[in-house]
Amino acid sequence: MAYANLSKAELQKVFDELSAEYKGYQAKNLSLNMARGKPSAKQLELALGVLEALKARSEFANSNGDDCRNYGLWDGLPEMKRIFADMVGVPASQVILGNNSSLMMMFEVISRGFSHGYNGCTPWCKLDKKKFLCPVPGYDRHFAVTEYYGFELINIPMYATGPDMDLIEKLVKDDDSIKGIWCVPKYSNPTGVTYSDETVRRFAALKPAAKDFKIMWDNAYCVHDLTDTPDTLLNIYDLCVENGTEDQIFIFASTSKISFPGAGVAGLATSDNNIRDFKEHTLTSTIGPDKLNQLRHVLFLHDINGVRALMKGHRAILEPKFRLCELMLEENVGDLGVAEWNKPNGGYFISVDVLDGCAKRVVQLCKEAGVILTDAGATFPYGKDPHDSNIRLAPSFPPLEELEQAMEVFCCSIKLAAAEKLLNA
Amino acid sequence: MAYANLSKAELQKVFDELSAEYKGYQAKNLSLNMARGKPSAKQLELALGVLEALKARSEFANSNGDDCRNYGLWDGLPEMKRIFADMVGVPASQVILGNNSSLMMMFEVISRGFSHGYNGCTPWCKLDKKKFLCPVPGYDRHFAVTEYYGFELINIPMYATGPDMDLIEKLVKDDDSIKGIWCVPKYSNPTGVTYSDETVRRFAALKPAAKDFKIMWDNAYCVHDLTDTPDTLLNIYDLCVENGTEDQIFIFASTSKISFPGAGVAGLATSDNNIRDFKEHTLTSTIGPDKLNQLRHVLFLHDINGVRALMKGHRAILEPKFRLCELMLEENVGDLGVAEWNKPNGGYFISVDVLDGCAKRVVQLCKEAGVILTDAGATFPYGKDPHDSNIRLAPSFPPLEELEQAMEVFCCSIKLAAAEKLLNA
Repeated sequence: MAYANLSKAELQKVFDELSAEYKGYQAKNLSLNMARGKPSAKQLELALGVLEALKARSEFANSNGDDCRNYGLWDGLPEMKRIFADMVGVPASQVILGNNSSLMMMFEVISRGFSHGYNGCTPWCKLDKKKFLCPVPGYDRHFAVTEYYGFELINIPMYATGPDMDLIEKLVKDDDSIKGIWCVPKYSNPTGVTYSDETVRRFAALKPAAKDFKIMWDNAYCVHDLTDTPDTLLNIYDLCVENGTEDQIFIFASTSKISFPGAGVAGLATSDNNIRDFKEHTLTSTIGPDKLNQLRHVLFLHDINGVRALMKGHRAILEPKFRLCELMLEENVGDLGVAEWNKPNGGYFISVDVLDGCAKRVVQLCKEAGVILTDAGATFPYGKDPHDSNIRLAPSFPPLEELEQAMEVFCCSIKLAAAEKLLNA
Repeated sequence: MAYANLSKAELQKVFDELSAEYKGYQAKNLSLNMARGKPSAKQLELALGVLEALKARSEFANSNGDDCRNYGLWDGLPEMKRIFADMVGVPASQVILGNNSSLMMMFEVISRGFSHGYNGCTPWCKLDKKKFLCPVPGYDRHFAVTEYYGFELINIPMYATGPDMDLIEKLVKDDDSIKGIWCVPKYSNPTGVTYSDETVRRFAALKPAAKDFKIMWDNAYCVHDLTDTPDTLLNIYDLCVENGTEDQIFIFASTSKISFPGAGVAGLATSDNNIRDFKEHTLTSTIGPDKLNQLRHVLFLHDINGVRALMKGHRAILEPKFRLCELMLEENVGDLGVAEWNKPNGGYFISVDVLDGCAKRVVQLCKEAGVILTDAGATFPYGKDPHDSNIRLAPSFPPLEELEQAMEVFCCSIKLAAAEKLLNA
């Protein structure tokens, strides 16, 4: 029965039982971590072939005959561009490859706008006021990049169809100080939402007042399905070309959660104008990315089919973890009216909304029982969740047994925090 | 006999003979490249062990037990820091490791000053006027970074002892718009000069008006000796600590010319204050560098002794190329009064000064005979050599036979351009 319908006395009894249960967990001296979307050791072993890929001398040349060990090729290997292009649905000619971090490439895109501006507009460093739209809950590292560069961050609510497009269209129409928006369009971090066809169409048709408005389309989970009924995301690049808005879009992806988080290959895709601008920035800062690592990936993955086959291996490891979390939430707090959560078809996160004002308390309770979660508030700009209700679960890293222990503590903490709140109401 | 002492008729005869010789080279349809300081294929083979280093599962953990395949460790592996620290002579605690490009780390240092400022000073993007000192001839990619960020670049003459310290001390004393200086203190690019002890001491003792003045100490050739009598460079970090000026220095190095130019490991060393600032920038832009590549290098190089042993292999390949260039210059233009050059004890370049107004012509003549050199002027800010006399030779990449052919064309072109000039005088 929902906690809200319990009498004070009933609630006190529940609270006492939960407190005892919680003390039991504390006595176990657990040390478990569900804080970040890190692949597990088992997943990392799926890609060991990447490290075996470079053996014979003849393999060091790419298709152009360049020696991948030496300087050169600022935008990466053509063969690896092809794989990226197929992952995110763009022509290979629109792809630029970097080193191991797509976040770094996003940072560079913002950094370039800050120092030099885009599309002939005033560099962002020269503006007194500049804003960036942040669908919430969202990814803390995205928000941090634009906070670092002095943008005012504007919360945009996330729905089951994606961000609130009515609000976005209204805001950008007249305010040319709004310079862009962060998006994780497929299996969004943390809500797991994939943007609806209509949402994608409206993004591609967006006509902002700012001529240098950029959609930061972080397609981090483009091939990261976890079910037999995966979500599908409309191809925004094609739609942008149809609308003549391709200068507005930067698409990002990486193999961080395909091969290795620390040693994968990142890339971006965008329009010819943006490539020209980005090229100037990149060529000033480096002679080129690590092409040997790209070659390793090419030799191991071969093509998009190799990527898809590998992702089946990841799914086999990840899916049971997601199902376990969902099952335990359902069983433990399903009918108590103290939490809601999503059941994503892919990606790396489960987003749990607890009672307003309880998220920090739940995270604290978990911590004091040896279970580290993502900080409450982290999914919002400036770390401030206005309702203090959202918690991001990252089930990928712990082995199943540990995950089960962690989820026991988490479910108990949700209930304990809710009972506390209702008793003090 | 020196061309300057020849009669017009004698000079015309020389010119006619040189023109015929030059036409002979043109008829060979050569395609040779001495433009960039790229290691040769033979050198790249010295480090193939790097690629074999990661085999067994147990090797993926670093000394802290972290899995190098996963996220984490923003400043790199402790073991690799140790090797860097020994290469440049700093405590390992002062080292931050990056990906494959030290140029990228220099760019980031400047970029951070541009967006956020150092030591509590106004960010450089907010300044109407900002200047950077550039010892000339120097490295084009250094100059390009500060040009990109809108600095006015000031030429500083290079002497046999390093940059003109009298001029530097005079300039920085009163002008707080001068924010830093580019230095290649050992086997300088392209002059091969190693800064004298006095020069290093004066750098460490520099008291600029700008509190955010930064010495960009690119120790790119710290272990790149080519003779039995290598140059020695005083340890500037120790001297800075003695002088209390350690916030003024950023020291850079990489394994680009130790292991692989495209797939090495780069690093910087600096003060605790600078590390704190740089950390904020780096942690906002990436979760960390490619640690697997660092681990590869650690397993292959082991320690500074492994680096030194490897560098002997590089010397064995490079030294004959440098000697060949020097010999051919001596034999072909040694007593003609049309060129001067250095004989470096290490590094990657020979700097040739031809007659004033002849450098562009020499590079053009070489190009039209199928020999690509570094663009004349490239060793100066904005690509403008005020005397049009400096040419940078990069002997490392071509095999010896090709180098000999290229040097024949180069020597002939020096003489031809000189004779042309004197005939038209």
